[in-house]
Amino acid sequence: MVKSDIEIAQASPMTAITDIATKAGISSDDIEQYGKYKAKITFEALDKLQQNDNGKLILVTAINPTPAGEGKSTVTIGLGDALKQLGHQAMIALREPSLGPVMGIKGGAAGGGYAQVLPMEDINLHFTGDLHAITTANNAIAALLDNHIHQGNALNIDPRRVIWKRVVDLNDRELRQIIAGLGSPVNGVPREDGFDITVASEIMAVFCLATSIENLKARLAKIVVAYTYDRMPVTVGDLEIQGAITVLLKDALKPNLVQTIEGTPAFVHGGPFANIAHGCNSVLATTAALKAADFTVTEAGFGADLGGEKFLDIKTRELPKHPDAVVIVATVRALKMNGGVAKADLAAENTSALRAGFANLNRHIDNIQGYGLPVVVAINEFVTDTAEEIAILSELLTAKNVDFSLTQVWAKGGAGGLDLAEKVVKATEKSSDFHYLYELEASIPEKIETIVTKIYGGASVTLTKKAQTQIATFERNGWDKLPICMAKTQYSFSDDQNLLGAPEGFDITIRELVPKLGAGFIVALTGDIMTMPGLPKKPAALNMDVDNAGHISGLF
Amino acid sequence: MVKSDIEIAQASPMTAITDIATKAGISSDDIEQYGKYKAKITFEALDKLQQNDNGKLILVTAINPTPAGEGKSTVTIGLGDALKQLGHQAMIALREPSLGPVMGIKGGAAGGGYAQVLPMEDINLHFTGDLHAITTANNAIAALLDNHIHQGNALNIDPRRVIWKRVVDLNDRELRQIIAGLGSPVNGVPREDGFDITVASEIMAVFCLATSIENLKARLAKIVVAYTYDRMPVTVGDLEIQGAITVLLKDALKPNLVQTIEGTPAFVHGGPFANIAHGCNSVLATTAALKAADFTVTEAGFGADLGGEKFLDIKTRELPKHPDAVVIVATVRALKMNGGVAKADLAAENTSALRAGFANLNRHIDNIQGYGLPVVVAINEFVTDTAEEIAILSELLTAKNVDFSLTQVWAKGGAGGLDLAEKVVKATEKSSDFHYLYELEASIPEKIETIVTKIYGGASVTLTKKAQTQIATFERNGWDKLPICMAKTQYSFSDDQNLLGAPEGFDITIRELVPKLGAGFIVALTGDIMTMPGLPKKPAALNMDVDNAGHISGLF
Repeated sequence: MVKSDIEIAQASPMTAITDIATKAGISSDDIEQYGKYKAKITFEALDKLQQNDNGKLILVTAINPTPAGEGKSTVTIGLGDALKQLGHQAMIALREPSLGPVMGIKGGAAGGGYAQVLPMEDINLHFTGDLHAITTANNAIAALLDNHIHQGNALNIDPRRVIWKRVVDLNDRELRQIIAGLGSPVNGVPREDGFDITVASEIMAVFCLATSIENLKARLAKIVVAYTYDRMPVTVGDLEIQGAITVLLKDALKPNLVQTIEGTPAFVHGGPFANIAHGCNSVLATTAALKAADFTVTEAGFGADLGGEKFLDIKTRELPKHPDAVVIVATVRALKMNGGVAKADLAAENTSALRAGFANLNRHIDNIQGYGLPVVVAINEFVTDTAEEIAILSELLTAKNVDFSLTQVWAKGGAGGLDLAEKVVKATEKSSDFHYLYELEASIPEKIETIVTKIYGGASVTLTKKAQTQIATFERNGWDKLPICMAKTQYSFSDDQNLLGAPEGFDITIRELVPKLGAGFIVALTGDIMTMPGLPKKPAALNMDVDNAGHISGLF
Repeated sequence: MVKSDIEIAQASPMTAITDIATKAGISSDDIEQYGKYKAKITFEALDKLQQNDNGKLILVTAINPTPAGEGKSTVTIGLGDALKQLGHQAMIALREPSLGPVMGIKGGAAGGGYAQVLPMEDINLHFTGDLHAITTANNAIAALLDNHIHQGNALNIDPRRVIWKRVVDLNDRELRQIIAGLGSPVNGVPREDGFDITVASEIMAVFCLATSIENLKARLAKIVVAYTYDRMPVTVGDLEIQGAITVLLKDALKPNLVQTIEGTPAFVHGGPFANIAHGCNSVLATTAALKAADFTVTEAGFGADLGGEKFLDIKTRELPKHPDAVVIVATVRALKMNGGVAKADLAAENTSALRAGFANLNRHIDNIQGYGLPVVVAINEFVTDTAEEIAILSELLTAKNVDFSLTQVWAKGGAGGLDLAEKVVKATEKSSDFHYLYELEASIPEKIETIVTKIYGGASVTLTKKAQTQIATFERNGWDKLPICMAKTQYSFSDDQNLLGAPEGFDITIRELVPKLGAGFIVALTGDIMTMPGLPKKPAALNMDVDNAGHISGLF
């Protein structure tokens, strides 16, 4: 019988986190333990690491995802373990999971099979409390803002134009749209409001891009939370609470160190949405890994068009270096789905759909090579893949003249990714000619058009009247020289989640822009983006249990 | 210049928490470190401790509090330190602070002056994440409940009769009364709702009374969250989510170990409101301290009429033993306020007001002696106290024939409480004749009447029509054999916060009853009890800051 992820994880012995830190060249005095197998790295340790040279950086991204999942985190972890097996000093830098999906749909975010980070239950639950600190910081801003309005409103804030929402780290549709402040004048000011999930908070994006406590505080101060009756922006700095909010975040800001099943050190830190935010783990953790290891493997959320593009055009601008190589994860199943097969039929062999769906992978390869970066494709094997399908995919990739490797990291851990690791190491030795997709000096419409035509393969961009007005305002406010964070469905290159494969000739409508001045980017919204998920009919929570000794079951 | 609490705390060297644990007879293998100076005790350690005999238990309570504060936590900590100075194996068991008041009004909850628990910033901020786990558990129940209604409502829940509120660990009046589920049918079911502060959640009360993971789960299953269209109660168990909610709480349930400035080990764990809940730290922590130390000093919230009564009639029923002695903390200032002096005039000598206010202390002494327990009064000295005032208070206490001691623990730490400690040790050697105030078998009205007449000094109880109907329902449901948790103003023996001193002949109206079946008590509401505080005009958050090395300022 095939073991579940949690069964594999619980059967895996762990090494004391002090020893894992030592392996990564971090003294046990420079960590703060959270139990025996989790730790935070002190700011002193981060300072010391700054003196080291940068290792190689490997970005793991993927084709457009399907509801089935492509195993990007699993490949990231397995690749790290494989690099370690090859004798390299390797580290992994991942995002930390949100409790919402953990309680909602089956699916933690700590890898799978024999390529997992441990302790998986802790990582999937409260971990070291980072998301709780972010939730609290976000909601403290909201409470202090509403209190300001209630206590005389010296800043002349228009309660109808408060754009700062509260958050919970749960899937809770009931809170999407509410009216708050009801009941009596002592209960604040009645106004429309709503909650997002914590990972959609700008605090999470700010947290993941901050380079120090001071930088975090400066970014927090810039966050726009509301507009005055005169339509002027009101920031966290105007409320004079950036100090207090930084106080709430200062411990969370320290990167979390854990280990893989094979004992490879891994930072798991920060995790913003990849649709309305940039979808990558923290700059501080990735930088620390670069300084501590010869090879750092990190991932970006969703496909290469979303998280990948944002890693390269947003996060990389804050890192000490750009990636040396990019791994694009593909599965036969997801390619077939991109070729038109329904989810229920994915287990059956379908070579023509595979050939059709290859167009999706093909464009992602071109896109990443367009950044001047070496690409290696990782075919993440599933038991349903047939020999014929694998042969056809190999033939297509050979014809494309791109490095690729069949990986079995779910089943075999690092041993299933040794060939991939060897090819990745070689790729990092090639000379790269990295350049950003767009320059920050370009106008907002120019930057959006570049992303749509060069990455998505679209033909044109339509700006709604609202977006046009906003662009004029943003230019007046001096906010137009920031990178663009596209908010788009992850399932398609286009803004229509049903247009799979490699659609062409489509138009993308930009409905609205959202200034995220703390994060330092402008969100461009295409269509409706869900910032508060709901629970399914049978939530995963119904299966969870814990015995009197603290042993958890039913967590996947 | 007098140093602030945070300055004193930051200047105090700390001992590694592993050494503190060892001093308490707990092996460093049996703790889970949270940084270098905080730890949780494993369930294995709690099991091992069960084999030890119980030490002596000292409950610290107080006269009716005033907005000035009486320094109950400070005396609790100073008494623990003094017992240690006398050569006893002493431990302290305190409640953990809520972030709401910390961000709102000046005032952490980690003691003061030279009688503090450390690290005070951590304890006052996120600490080990217990309150965040409780917030999440509470809100997961809410999300799963609303999802149940949204997804077909198999349990026939009446959305107008959902009594389970969401919580945040902040002072946020804007969330007291809301309408949720707005916008469209995909956003859940529109209904009236509201948020409490986390410490008012029944989860907090359950958490603090639970004796094991299994017991916690069984209690959670009993929590009533809503009623059906047929007015039948719906519980967490009916939703089949007690396992998942216990999963969210299992790490938080482990007691937190820290130290005082003088290195005395202290458990700081759990902290329910003392008005709508029972107001004491966790049973697990207090029990662990009893097993680990010869003397355990613990406190209960607000005055002896509220937290003290609930400690003795609710919490003690879950402890391995009743207190051996009770310390009642009084200050000259608070006695003068109880004698009719306005807050602004408290610094001035006023012997007649002191004599008048003594009636308050006098009744609390009688009440505790009525339980068959030895009493020691701690006069917590303030710089404004005059020699004449102290002399009069001493004379009144001597005439009362009760042990008392003048303490200076704020200024001197344990050295300021040595006389108190000696008297407390002697008190614990007296034979006690403890009995509960009421038997559980009594009816709900009988139990309430006993509390009102015997403890409050009131003449009668009026039950509203609603309360009478509820009592009939509760009797039918078999919920009437539980202890009563009175929800009353902390400022007066009566339900009128302006009736200071020792009022007599008053009537108490019970407006409504709330079944807290998980906690295992019935809340009796007198008047309006605030379960979500608001922020003041100038919140403490405005003063807080942190520098680039992580050094916090402005936290008191």
